[in-house]
Amino acid sequence: MPTPPEPLVGPGLRRSVATVCLSGTLEDKLAAAAAAGFDGVEIFENDLVTSSSSPADAARRATDLGLAIDLYQPFRDFEAVPDGVFRDNLRRAERKFDVMEQLGADTILVCSSVAPDAVDDDALAAAQLTELAERASARGLRVAYEALAWGRHVSTWDHSWRIVQQAGHPALGVCLDSFHILSRSPSADGVAELPGDKVFYLQLADAPRLSMDVLQWSRHHRLFPGQGAFDLVGFVEAVLATGYRGPLSLEVFNDVFRQADPDRTAIDAMRSLLVLEEGLHRGEAAPATPPAPALRGYAFTELAVDGVSGPEVANTLAALGFTHTGQHRSKPVQLWEQGQARVLLNAAVVRTEEAPGVAAIRALAVESDDPEGSAARASALLAPSVPRRRGVAEADLTAVRSPDEAELFFCRPGGRGWRDDFLPTGASADGGAGLLHTDHVALTQPFDHFDEAGLFYQSVLGLEEDARGEFAAPFGLVRTLALRDPSRQVRLALSVSLLRRGEWAPGVPDPQHIAFGTDDLDATAEHLRAHGAALLPVPQNYYDDLDARLDLAPELLTRLQRACAFYDRDEQGEFVHLYTEVLGGRVFFEVVQRIGGYQGYGVVNAPVRIAAAPTALRAS
Amino acid sequence: MPTPPEPLVGPGLRRSVATVCLSGTLEDKLAAAAAAGFDGVEIFENDLVTSSSSPADAARRATDLGLAIDLYQPFRDFEAVPDGVFRDNLRRAERKFDVMEQLGADTILVCSSVAPDAVDDDALAAAQLTELAERASARGLRVAYEALAWGRHVSTWDHSWRIVQQAGHPALGVCLDSFHILSRSPSADGVAELPGDKVFYLQLADAPRLSMDVLQWSRHHRLFPGQGAFDLVGFVEAVLATGYRGPLSLEVFNDVFRQADPDRTAIDAMRSLLVLEEGLHRGEAAPATPPAPALRGYAFTELAVDGVSGPEVANTLAALGFTHTGQHRSKPVQLWEQGQARVLLNAAVVRTEEAPGVAAIRALAVESDDPEGSAARASALLAPSVPRRRGVAEADLTAVRSPDEAELFFCRPGGRGWRDDFLPTGASADGGAGLLHTDHVALTQPFDHFDEAGLFYQSVLGLEEDARGEFAAPFGLVRTLALRDPSRQVRLALSVSLLRRGEWAPGVPDPQHIAFGTDDLDATAEHLRAHGAALLPVPQNYYDDLDARLDLAPELLTRLQRACAFYDRDEQGEFVHLYTEVLGGRVFFEVVQRIGGYQGYGVVNAPVRIAAAPTALRAS
Repeated sequence: MPTPPEPLVGPGLRRSVATVCLSGTLEDKLAAAAAAGFDGVEIFENDLVTSSSSPADAARRATDLGLAIDLYQPFRDFEAVPDGVFRDNLRRAERKFDVMEQLGADTILVCSSVAPDAVDDDALAAAQLTELAERASARGLRVAYEALAWGRHVSTWDHSWRIVQQAGHPALGVCLDSFHILSRSPSADGVAELPGDKVFYLQLADAPRLSMDVLQWSRHHRLFPGQGAFDLVGFVEAVLATGYRGPLSLEVFNDVFRQADPDRTAIDAMRSLLVLEEGLHRGEAAPATPPAPALRGYAFTELAVDGVSGPEVANTLAALGFTHTGQHRSKPVQLWEQGQARVLLNAAVVRTEEAPGVAAIRALAVESDDPEGSAARASALLAPSVPRRRGVAEADLTAVRSPDEAELFFCRPGGRGWRDDFLPTGASADGGAGLLHTDHVALTQPFDHFDEAGLFYQSVLGLEEDARGEFAAPFGLVRTLALRDPSRQVRLALSVSLLRRGEWAPGVPDPQHIAFGTDDLDATAEHLRAHGAALLPVPQNYYDDLDARLDLAPELLTRLQRACAFYDRDEQGEFVHLYTEVLGGRVFFEVVQRIGGYQGYGVVNAPVRIAAAPTALRAS
Repeated sequence: MPTPPEPLVGPGLRRSVATVCLSGTLEDKLAAAAAAGFDGVEIFENDLVTSSSSPADAARRATDLGLAIDLYQPFRDFEAVPDGVFRDNLRRAERKFDVMEQLGADTILVCSSVAPDAVDDDALAAAQLTELAERASARGLRVAYEALAWGRHVSTWDHSWRIVQQAGHPALGVCLDSFHILSRSPSADGVAELPGDKVFYLQLADAPRLSMDVLQWSRHHRLFPGQGAFDLVGFVEAVLATGYRGPLSLEVFNDVFRQADPDRTAIDAMRSLLVLEEGLHRGEAAPATPPAPALRGYAFTELAVDGVSGPEVANTLAALGFTHTGQHRSKPVQLWEQGQARVLLNAAVVRTEEAPGVAAIRALAVESDDPEGSAARASALLAPSVPRRRGVAEADLTAVRSPDEAELFFCRPGGRGWRDDFLPTGASADGGAGLLHTDHVALTQPFDHFDEAGLFYQSVLGLEEDARGEFAAPFGLVRTLALRDPSRQVRLALSVSLLRRGEWAPGVPDPQHIAFGTDDLDATAEHLRAHGAALLPVPQNYYDDLDARLDLAPELLTRLQRACAFYDRDEQGEFVHLYTEVLGGRVFFEVVQRIGGYQGYGVVNAPVRIAAAPTALRAS
């Protein structure tokens, strides 16, 4: 893992992560944060309370790992309470100040009260916070007051700021949290006018736009910057405009991250900050993260096959019009080509845990105008590098590993370099089925790493979000995220079962596929039929419903039926596509024709496709 | 599986289930509905569209299975549209009428429009629905119009009824859906005044009370009756008061059910209707489901052990003051007792798929005033019976299998019957640690079956809901449901990881435990310490936080620390409890003392307990 680069946004700006973002014990979390290169952590109270490490031990551990403890959080339901309660709260605060002294944390987060006995009295809140700040100050500590979006009387940042102003104590400032602010309003107008020395802390979280109770939204669905819908670049710019130079600190409550590998979550978190920092430097070169070179499409996709699945996949490729054009100089790897579409069949990379006969997409290779630049960017964004699989006189292909375990290669356009590893068979790649190129690759994601994978591919490859959705498949809900490069030459479709696969649907992995583009699906289908390609059958009910919904021209319907093809249309154009049956228990091919400006993926037809391949989904 | 009893609520009342409630293909769903004893199904359009069965084939299959097709659903965005759209919609409807004729379904569900081009004009809606009804009528079909809670202009049942009245067509009526009605208002005032012959269909779903967008709530979080917070008995009473005698039809969109075994979901669904029907007969004897006899506490809990875990568990029971009082006449089963607390250690029921050294709770036995009555109720509620494990001269214990695979035995109070299977060892059960009885048993549930298990235990045993909650544990969120009998002698605590265990937390099952009651935890703890019981260590941070929060008397804090005990309190009383370490990788014991009227389970302390047992949770 490379050392993360220096932050760009000025000296003293630090990267922090709240322990609540990460799964495991406090010790797991500190180790993960340090390994990902964070400068500091916020310690979430419950993580310390449940820990067998004393505060002093935790502090020593953090120091050994090179982590500062930037914040102790949260202290709840403190202010604007009747006098008796206030005395109790001060006693409680003093006990937590004891803990902070042992931790070496100098800032405590006080959330605006949600207590039923809190009163709506800013002067009382200011007076009680002043007393708290005075006691904190006596111990060299300070208090960051944060408006929870669901605070009982104080729920906006400007309200919390008015109270801090009214208190006027040097050890009392505000904590700004992007979720609490942007969940209520898409912009953070006015934040930039705050005096920076009264912004004591900055917490960052992204989130999808959801229409639900804000507390539940906040506690379950936050995401790292770049994974949701908030304008975090604009928000951080506003905060930096105040002169704030404290940590950029991630505080993300997320049900999936809570149970996922903390080491991976911490790297995902760090990557999100690197991408955010890149956004803060729009227009300038951001030396920490080299820019993404332009992509020119897929160089190849590599499938792992074995003695059983290899011939099955090869026969299907042949029926699809592909030709076996090259054989690797030193390894059992075949190159199959048609037009600009290329598939490698690699019989040396089946994993031992996989069932015999399996096929799987093992690597994606994209053509980059600057493969070394692409690799440098991937490395800067903490993509793990893959040990080379290079033989003598073979191309030095740079590869990184994606969160779904696929290897990602960066190649020169036109096959320069990697093609030299293959001895030509003499066969021509002018395939007869009219397939032109790889339209997209579709990868099903491991449940724990869907949002991580989205940010990974998007940032490492410089892709843009194309479409996001959710659909009901026969075996559960499926969530989708499609990404593409600006020129639409590299398209990647990610999906994940929303709740993992049901226990009754046996444990085969969800299938993956490669989609090839044609400009004449009828002709392609004719070729496939003539060559005996095993196409996925399409139920007549589908065509009946299609016709009921869209009132298609009878000849179009007939052509679709003849081709075993699916259909979709939108304002931009039309989409016709067909599928092979599933091969090697896991992989299938799609042929697509985009007509007019259609840019989608025919997701509306996915449930029919999944129901039609029940053997692949349910084979035990 | 016993045949479900006749419905009680009148001749002609049928039980139906929508295919959308169940996972799998249409064929899977029909088979599951029939096996659970449903009379009919609603066919959800997408389930037919994705099916390779033609409508006529599906109809034949349903007939063969004894299922009527009670409804075809849904037809969307039909009414109150401009004329051109209306012509398209009529064409679409005619095509769906073709499908219905082949299916043999006579009623189509039309949902109130959500289309942007729908206009707010009841007269237009009524006129267009009249035209639709006229065309349906010409084919012997009828139209049930339903107000979606998020309909664009029509979102309440009374609004849909006004439009149906205005239309005045005999083939047009309303469909009442408990979710759409009760999600907007806790009662269904006025429903009972509808004319029953204009209520064409009744759809039932329960749901938890959630504060979120009603469409998302409806599409993801519905539950079967009795699993949520709605008053479905009151609702169905109101609908039956109209004279409606059509199906009670379940329509439940639920993310978990969508991916769970459809055979099990269908039985869960049928059980929910049986419980609902029992509720409709409050006060009267409901012959279909015999009443739940009174329970008198736990007779015993049985643990599966092997040669490694057996001695480990036995040693711990001995240190806890239990005595090995009996040995089974024919099997390697030991009876351990103390007061009224009894544990069986069974070395004959370890499952082959389990790791060597494992211990697991395999059976719960409750004392019932009428064990045969309890068994008859369980059978009527579709609990699968367990093949007897009886030897010559051994008690004929009736047992059923719960959704979490635990066996549930019904025993006579005082040990009559089952105790005769054990030869006394001569040792006395007057244990020295002061344990009095089994306070509760805590079972972690399989992800796919948490709501099913809740309804199962609640209905079969006649338990009431005690507490429901959710907490953040170190390895993910945990959801809890505590149940108890009316006399609080049988308490059962269920829990499930909200998103299953993370992929990084290795695959050991979540631990289960048995809690024993004492009335002097200090004395019990003293005994445990003296006898070397391996207690779970409690971090000092926990006590510091407890003291900061609750300002405990110093001597109480000292006693808790000395006992390695946890503490909770509420308005009713106090709770002190301690845990052993995890045994056999999966099972531990708890000792609890309830002081005053405390009725909870100390859930607030669960994260500390889970973090303190990391080896059990994370051993690979």
